[in-house]
Amino acid sequence: MITYNPKDWFTFIFRFHKADTLRQLAPLIIGICAYCWIIAYLELNVFKLSKSSHITNITSMHSLLSFVISMLLVFRTNTAYDRWWEGRKLWGSLVNNSRNLAIKLHSMLGVEDEVHRSFFKKIIPMYASVLSHHLHAESTRLALDEQEQPELRNLDTNRHIPNQVASLLIQRVNRLFEEGKIKGEQLIILNNELQSFTDICGACERIKNTPIPFSYSVFLKKFIFFYVMTLPFSFVISLGYIAIPVVAFIFYVLASLELVAEEIEDPFGGDENDLPMNKMAQNIKKHVTEILG
Amino acid sequence: MITYNPKDWFTFIFRFHKADTLRQLAPLIIGICAYCWIIAYLELNVFKLSKSSHITNITSMHSLLSFVISMLLVFRTNTAYDRWWEGRKLWGSLVNNSRNLAIKLHSMLGVEDEVHRSFFKKIIPMYASVLSHHLHAESTRLALDEQEQPELRNLDTNRHIPNQVASLLIQRVNRLFEEGKIKGEQLIILNNELQSFTDICGACERIKNTPIPFSYSVFLKKFIFFYVMTLPFSFVISLGYIAIPVVAFIFYVLASLELVAEEIEDPFGGDENDLPMNKMAQNIKKHVTEILG
Amino acid sequence: MITYNPKDWFTFIFRFHKADTLRQLAPLIIGICAYCWIIAYLELNVFKLSKSSHITNITSMHSLLSFVISMLLVFRTNTAYDRWWEGRKLWGSLVNNSRNLAIKLHSMLGVEDEVHRSFFKKIIPMYASVLSHHLHAESTRLALDEQEQPELRNLDTNRHIPNQVASLLIQRVNRLFEEGKIKGEQLIILNNELQSFTDICGACERIKNTPIPFSYSVFLKKFIFFYVMTLPFSFVISLGYIAIPVVAFIFYVLASLELVAEEIEDPFGGDENDLPMNKMAQNIKKHVTEILG
Amino acid sequence: MITYNPKDWFTFIFRFHKADTLRQLAPLIIGICAYCWIIAYLELNVFKLSKSSHITNITSMHSLLSFVISMLLVFRTNTAYDRWWEGRKLWGSLVNNSRNLAIKLHSMLGVEDEVHRSFFKKIIPMYASVLSHHLHAESTRLALDEQEQPELRNLDTNRHIPNQVASLLIQRVNRLFEEGKIKGEQLIILNNELQSFTDICGACERIKNTPIPFSYSVFLKKFIFFYVMTLPFSFVISLGYIAIPVVAFIFYVLASLELVAEEIEDPFGGDENDLPMNKMAQNIKKHVTEILG
Amino acid sequence: MITYNPKDWFTFIFRFHKADTLRQLAPLIIGICAYCWIIAYLELNVFKLSKSSHITNITSMHSLLSFVISMLLVFRTNTAYDRWWEGRKLWGSLVNNSRNLAIKLHSMLGVEDEVHRSFFKKIIPMYASVLSHHLHAESTRLALDEQEQPELRNLDTNRHIPNQVASLLIQRVNRLFEEGKIKGEQLIILNNELQSFTDICGACERIKNTPIPFSYSVFLKKFIFFYVMTLPFSFVISLGYIAIPVVAFIFYVLASLELVAEEIEDPFGGDENDLPMNKMAQNIKKHVTEILG
Repeated sequence: MITYNPKDWFTFIFRFHKADTLRQLAPLIIGICAYCWIIAYLELNVFKLSKSSHITNITSMHSLLSFVISMLLVFRTNTAYDRWWEGRKLWGSLVNNSRNLAIKLHSMLGVEDEVHRSFFKKIIPMYASVLSHHLHAESTRLALDEQEQPELRNLDTNRHIPNQVASLLIQRVNRLFEEGKIKGEQLIILNNELQSFTDICGACERIKNTPIPFSYSVFLKKFIFFYVMTLPFSFVISLGYIAIPVVAFIFYVLASLELVAEEIEDPFGGDENDLPMNKMAQNIKKHVTEILG
Repeated sequence: MITYNPKDWFTFIFRFHKADTLRQLAPLIIGICAYCWIIAYLELNVFKLSKSSHITNITSMHSLLSFVISMLLVFRTNTAYDRWWEGRKLWGSLVNNSRNLAIKLHSMLGVEDEVHRSFFKKIIPMYASVLSHHLHAESTRLALDEQEQPELRNLDTNRHIPNQVASLLIQRVNRLFEEGKIKGEQLIILNNELQSFTDICGACERIKNTPIPFSYSVFLKKFIFFYVMTLPFSFVISLGYIAIPVVAFIFYVLASLELVAEEIEDPFGGDENDLPMNKMAQNIKKHVTEILG
Repeated sequence: MITYNPKDWFTFIFRFHKADTLRQLAPLIIGICAYCWIIAYLELNVFKLSKSSHITNITSMHSLLSFVISMLLVFRTNTAYDRWWEGRKLWGSLVNNSRNLAIKLHSMLGVEDEVHRSFFKKIIPMYASVLSHHLHAESTRLALDEQEQPELRNLDTNRHIPNQVASLLIQRVNRLFEEGKIKGEQLIILNNELQSFTDICGACERIKNTPIPFSYSVFLKKFIFFYVMTLPFSFVISLGYIAIPVVAFIFYVLASLELVAEEIEDPFGGDENDLPMNKMAQNIKKHVTEILG
Repeated sequence: MITYNPKDWFTFIFRFHKADTLRQLAPLIIGICAYCWIIAYLELNVFKLSKSSHITNITSMHSLLSFVISMLLVFRTNTAYDRWWEGRKLWGSLVNNSRNLAIKLHSMLGVEDEVHRSFFKKIIPMYASVLSHHLHAESTRLALDEQEQPELRNLDTNRHIPNQVASLLIQRVNRLFEEGKIKGEQLIILNNELQSFTDICGACERIKNTPIPFSYSVFLKKFIFFYVMTLPFSFVISLGYIAIPVVAFIFYVLASLELVAEEIEDPFGGDENDLPMNKMAQNIKKHVTEILG
Repeated sequence: MITYNPKDWFTFIFRFHKADTLRQLAPLIIGICAYCWIIAYLELNVFKLSKSSHITNITSMHSLLSFVISMLLVFRTNTAYDRWWEGRKLWGSLVNNSRNLAIKLHSMLGVEDEVHRSFFKKIIPMYASVLSHHLHAESTRLALDEQEQPELRNLDTNRHIPNQVASLLIQRVNRLFEEGKIKGEQLIILNNELQSFTDICGACERIKNTPIPFSYSVFLKKFIFFYVMTLPFSFVISLGYIAIPVVAFIFYVLASLELVAEEIEDPFGGDENDLPMNKMAQNIKKHVTEILG
């Protein structure tokens, strides 16, 4: 994730960061310009179409559809943002629950009980760390794929690591209860945090392995493609060669929205905008150590 | 469900998957083209209408209504997506709760207690599996139908299977409590997961048996039909025979949105985009066995 | 509620169900056509206005406002749908909680304890049944009305029936606890379901007795009325007598949206689209009997 | 709050209720008409501007901005409605929790325990009643104001009444527990309802003392003002004196949206559309008396 | 935060508050006017472009994109408002939980137990106060930054203050339980409030350290910049020098939306519209003292 100051307009407008869609789209924009130039050359210099040609009125199609495409793309970006923000919230809960669990155990365990303290000091932050690895793995993304994945068969035999860590934590707390080191009411109090780990893991897996429905995604891409490809037909007649930057700019806007959506809809990947899970796992480690130390 | 890589534009645009709306709509699009050709032939060659004809201005109706139809369809798709995503969340909770229940029981049951371990190893994943069958059944979809369904009468005499499985689980845990094998506080801790099964089942049934209100659905379909059918009247005058692909494209866009919505609003059917409940039930089985094994 | 197959387009477009807005609006649409014909006759044949008349440009007002009216109506329908769907969710919770309560009590009560079993077998489903009657009653809809309702005064002396049923359930469970038939932890576990009944009842009452704010509703209706009434002024000049079906169609679309919203915003009435509360109460009865039987 | 039948169109369109925005805006609409007439007189009769004048094209600005103003106002109204509806939900919870608390206490307290019964019969409904007063008070609205409010200084020395009532309830329940009249598990069960009172009070205070951000509100009002004030410049040329009712109607629509939003964003005031808190407090009193009686 | 009366239109329109976007944007608006004047001078007086010039039709690009830019900006403002409102809700919960905790402890602690009373009277409000400082700190905003921050290294060695205060509270309550001063059930009842402090802190940190994704923000700013910069090209031809105030007004509207969004998306800063955390912390102190006093 890139931390930035949203009020610094100058840098935003005149610098081209690696994660800037303008930089990523540059080759395609050049392609669109070339395509547009060809259409313009054909219509204006070869066929010499005039403003009374039927083809000028294709604009009315683009006007009618401009609402749909705008709304679809804006909603697409918003849905992707919701997934990204949900991912952030889940990791936020992981931070909170790790801290709360540490604080509660700190108050329940005896000051001298070094054995258990060092166990929890190690295992609580370990959950965030293994979850981070788990979510980066390709096998997690394909967990719901019904096709055979021969190259993943070996990996599949591995057990689910976050479950094992959660199991370790819950077993230890349960043993403390059975040995009488913590009372029943304290067990009830610790339960919320303990069960939240697996809930968070499952919710992150859901975001990771369930993209938006295939038909929707494929429709949107075909729509953008046809929409932009037919734009120059009428624009070159009314705008002449000025149509080239105009179509390029419209393409930049529409494609950027789709691109931003693609980047943020899976917040657990390695893109520039994805969540800094390693950093968060480190922060959890730091705080839990501080509390239980 | 189809797992795919959202960043692979080339495949999206130039291949025609079975779940692609363009492929499903192909026959209708051809029909619309024929209809459009007839209108064009009549207006241009038979009646020889000119641009000053009143009929040209029907476009203003289409402009005024283009907002409404766009917003309605985009909201329609979003509402359907929300239902689909809610379905996915519910099955995600089923995964989480099955895992958490298994982890908790694993820590509470004695290591040597093979009888109970093998009971839970079998019955916890069974819930997901019977729920999957239950949601595929036609009788579940029609559970709120007030009309007589004579052909379903025999089925109706069957009891509600998921309730029976949930009942088995809760009874067994209660017996463990009454026999003193688990303590009161542990019973309280297990309660969340135990009652969630029935809550999830009921919420899935709700999505399955309650489509969007009939009046709304019927209005939307009539609206799209009239809107597209009246489009060529004015378009053939301003666009000539180019109106044929133009109207076909507008139809493709509007109908695709409705089609995608229809496919995903019931996420528990057998459509290509529906949730992979069998795969999820298998995953639950695998993880629960791993944990309790 | 009408159960239907959303993929059956043919029936939707060519049949006119009782709940179809086209059928309900038919008389009004005929009225609008007549009104439109009068305006057309006056402007075209009596005053013989030409296209250069100032009145033609009223279209620009309709364009500017078309976005507001579209958004208002689409949001209006969506808000109404949210209320309808919230109502459905509440009844879904009622189903879930009735089932869960029955399952839990089934595991806690002795097999031979026929007295309590038959009590709960009768009283749990009774809640859904009395709630259904309660929500149909006119006095529930007017519960927040500050005006005197002389004709309802006698009814008002009746006590709140759902509260009494909930009270019966809670009292019985509490007695079981005090007699030692269920333990404290079991009481805690049963509490969620027991208190949910009153919460669900209150939330349904809220939807029933609180329509959207009066000013909002009155503004929306005045807006639609003036918008449609001024449409023909400019349309008859640019479209001639074709304006009649055009204005009728625009009216059909706008009024349908408002009509659908009105029908579904109170999901507990007797409209065709309202929730099948009786059917749901029957289903609850069937399942609870099955479980506790 | 005004209770009404949403299906009664005739009354809505032809009667002018006190809470009708058309009646509230009447003087302003007349002002706008006068302003419009002056502009029309100047442009048409004094300067005699023709249709080829540059000023005609200001319409393109109004078209470009019509989306933004529409969306802003519709969202504004929706945000205000959400606050209003949240307020209604909070009071709905207050109703539910008062009832549930009464039902639970009714089952826990001995039948003959008149002392405690009459205490709760009085204090539970009192909470709703003091909360209603608290939310009407000016000091509550200004609770987050950082400026000195010299005229409120005396009031500020008063203690927070709802907190005191909640404290009375919680203290009494705790004493019952310590005296052994209710058991620990019953105390846990009562806790949800007891703590909800303060949560509801705090959430209502939040809605009351936090309007939408100042910059947003001020921007919206300036925007509407400039938008409507510049409308006649181009409209009088294309529409002549017909521009007067046209601009008035557009103003009516935009200003009504803002007016409705202003009325409902604080649901705890004394406006016609505000929540009937007194009536709700009376209903709570009636039901609690019924249950505990 | 600025407390104001939303119904006072006159002040809103004719006064220029420090937090008014019109005042903040004034220098930029003057710049835009100058830029516009230059374009107008070049096109009208130097190149003498006529209305038949291709450049006039650039307007069609602005029309096509006006919908996207409007929706993007309105959604941007709404997302920012949601973050601001979530921040307000979190602080509202802090108020509620502090009050509830104080009320509960007041009923559980003996009247004469001055030691513990004065401890909680001091430490409960201290949480709000240290959280306020914590959220103002620059290190909190940069907590997820993966780059090295050399100037913050010294600060980083400081421990997390809110965690320490929460730990103090939880430890003290736990000691009361272990010393038998409060019972197990009372411990369970206090748990909700105690763990909420850390949850609230974590959620505030999330809003503070996670702005909207970088790519999204950068795209939006580039889009606004190009959109406004190309506006005068076509406008000066159709509007002449009137284009100057027109473009300035469009810029004012679009930039204000972005500016308002930037101000409110981080509700824990020092902007005029940010939440009055100090005032809220003072209120908490006042109320807790009142209750426990």
